[in-house]
Amino acid sequence: MAQRLAAWTQHTKRSALQDMLELTSGPEYISFGLGLPNAECFPAKQLAVSANEVLLRQSDPLQYAPPAEQLKRQIQLLMRKRGVECSTSQIFLTAGAQQGINLLVRLLLDPGKAVLAEEVTYTGFLQVLEPFQPRMMTVSTDPATGIDVEQVEQVLQTEERPACMYVIPSGHNPLSYTLSREKRQKLAQLAAEYEVPIIEDDPYGFLAYEDIEIPAIKSFQSDWVFYVGSFSKILAPGLRLGWIIANEEIIEKLSIVKEATDINTATLTQQIAANFLQKDEFANHLHHLRQEYRSRRNGMLDQLEAQLGEAGSWTIPSSGLFIWVRFPESINTMELFRESITTEKVTFFPGSVFAVNPSRMASSSIRLNFSFNNHDKIEEGITRLSRLVKRHL
Amino acid sequence: MAQRLAAWTQHTKRSALQDMLELTSGPEYISFGLGLPNAECFPAKQLAVSANEVLLRQSDPLQYAPPAEQLKRQIQLLMRKRGVECSTSQIFLTAGAQQGINLLVRLLLDPGKAVLAEEVTYTGFLQVLEPFQPRMMTVSTDPATGIDVEQVEQVLQTEERPACMYVIPSGHNPLSYTLSREKRQKLAQLAAEYEVPIIEDDPYGFLAYEDIEIPAIKSFQSDWVFYVGSFSKILAPGLRLGWIIANEEIIEKLSIVKEATDINTATLTQQIAANFLQKDEFANHLHHLRQEYRSRRNGMLDQLEAQLGEAGSWTIPSSGLFIWVRFPESINTMELFRESITTEKVTFFPGSVFAVNPSRMASSSIRLNFSFNNHDKIEEGITRLSRLVKRHL
Repeated sequence: MAQRLAAWTQHTKRSALQDMLELTSGPEYISFGLGLPNAECFPAKQLAVSANEVLLRQSDPLQYAPPAEQLKRQIQLLMRKRGVECSTSQIFLTAGAQQGINLLVRLLLDPGKAVLAEEVTYTGFLQVLEPFQPRMMTVSTDPATGIDVEQVEQVLQTEERPACMYVIPSGHNPLSYTLSREKRQKLAQLAAEYEVPIIEDDPYGFLAYEDIEIPAIKSFQSDWVFYVGSFSKILAPGLRLGWIIANEEIIEKLSIVKEATDINTATLTQQIAANFLQKDEFANHLHHLRQEYRSRRNGMLDQLEAQLGEAGSWTIPSSGLFIWVRFPESINTMELFRESITTEKVTFFPGSVFAVNPSRMASSSIRLNFSFNNHDKIEEGITRLSRLVKRHL
Repeated sequence: MAQRLAAWTQHTKRSALQDMLELTSGPEYISFGLGLPNAECFPAKQLAVSANEVLLRQSDPLQYAPPAEQLKRQIQLLMRKRGVECSTSQIFLTAGAQQGINLLVRLLLDPGKAVLAEEVTYTGFLQVLEPFQPRMMTVSTDPATGIDVEQVEQVLQTEERPACMYVIPSGHNPLSYTLSREKRQKLAQLAAEYEVPIIEDDPYGFLAYEDIEIPAIKSFQSDWVFYVGSFSKILAPGLRLGWIIANEEIIEKLSIVKEATDINTATLTQQIAANFLQKDEFANHLHHLRQEYRSRRNGMLDQLEAQLGEAGSWTIPSSGLFIWVRFPESINTMELFRESITTEKVTFFPGSVFAVNPSRMASSSIRLNFSFNNHDKIEEGITRLSRLVKRHL
């Protein structure tokens, strides 16, 4: 069995880090590691009312069913806030954004083809790619200004055409930047010009903490941008609901891939979400959520300033759930993480986890999540982190 | 775009039949086509109570979470009824059985490798295989006695070793047979002897209509049988909950593939199902469900006898949701189906849909679902079907 198991699992590498994060989930740890929303902000009571209404009054919330039109209509309205006008026939429902990315990659990518991505990007996207073993065309990126769009253009001009480009425009995971309007426009233009679709992964697009909201890349170019949205960060990840916006012919093909994958997205959670969204309580919920996360972000920034000070530099994210902290290059944050497990007991993701190729910038950086913990925990956690880092300077 | 779309979609063929089934979902049609459970049997009120309890009392049913231990414990107890003793660490939760099959195939099968299956089998399995384009090693099968186990042995002795064997032992979809204990034992033995894992797809294993219940193949051979279970047919498909039972090292690898696919199965529906199952109302529910489906099966068999008579022959299924009806070879059931859409307006699946290679046996047969419609609809539907068939004799 051992021999066959080895053959079966060649493309299922698990990072040692993931195991460590599980090992460190005990109450003595303060976790800035995973990108978890704050559970106290989930509208549990309202969703209980919706569950009741749906199960007792509506027809067949427990049956196999085509994607719920009511939910698509709510997504259509939501997308106007991202500058995107679309019909409900251009909306495809998924079991969360991760499934959305997965279905798109399976549609776009044959094994071995190339993919264009930043040198530092979301690990969940890299996991999706693993069984296909594509050639990675990486471009530079920056925690403040984001993907190097000039370089994207150079690569498209000179190299083979990739199957797709992967972009996280708002509250980038892990770098935390929000891409400027100009860069979005340019990316949209390049996608159309070179006929290379963009997978626009936008789970944090509705979590803007400043007054300006920059429209989705999709709003500048409809045909060549496949937008991936999610209710995980703005409603609740336990529902497993997300969506893709693309042209009808793409939707039709996605529905075939989806059927083979898991038949359909859970009818019950679709109907619960649609019921809740129809009640117009969602705008209040989202307003409250942004206030809470803005406050936690500010709390973490204050603590970094007060305690870490000149021992590091960090981003001031205008969206999303993360702050990216860079230390002097002498500090290897993977080693820092290992040490933290047994000493200070504060967890975070070392930057190298997100690096497509070994990267000095990434290996001396970490990703901190600010949404999950309350202010007291944030203060205590940054205190521990600063102590840990200062021992290494 | 058209050119690139064609390249993207080469392995996403949609059967024209699927489209036709959608076209024929209007109220003027009687559908024996899809394998839908009877919605009146869903325990909607009890699940509403469970949803309320879970959302108002438990911690974090809306958060990302590891698979629910409470649900695994309930599955562990259920599996004893299938003769399977396992630990909860050998249970892996999925978004329905289709996802279970999909994850297993992605783990076991490299593109191009061979798969052993019956000449007539579940289309959902064939859809999962499509992107891998495996070599199909087909063996004979029979609507009454099932997969030809002698032939399985011959194939394993003489040909290349397949990546896996796919078996639906109880209430086979579409052939409706339930495999004998002896054949199950022999398959289990062959799996171990030739080190070829069996994917045991058992969505109907708890829907036995006679007093005898034959244990799962997994009960005879633990290491080389990967069992796929589902709540879709015994609780509700709208929850999207299923499970795999396999050894711990397989579970560990599945969890990596699953994480890349959709992170985790919906925490909310897991907790709702666990809450309901813990209340011991499930045994009553299942008893009622079997009575109801037995009665509908008997009703359809009576109607076939009274109306179709010697124009066809059919199985008497002891499990599952389907009856397999065979007509004289002069009748092509794909043509029969096309005609029915505009004339009698009764729908069913032509047998050829399930055939891996063109098959005369399949092309003069149909699959009828007996769970979805009530007795009146069954009578009316079989009346229409008999009229249709008799015009072609």
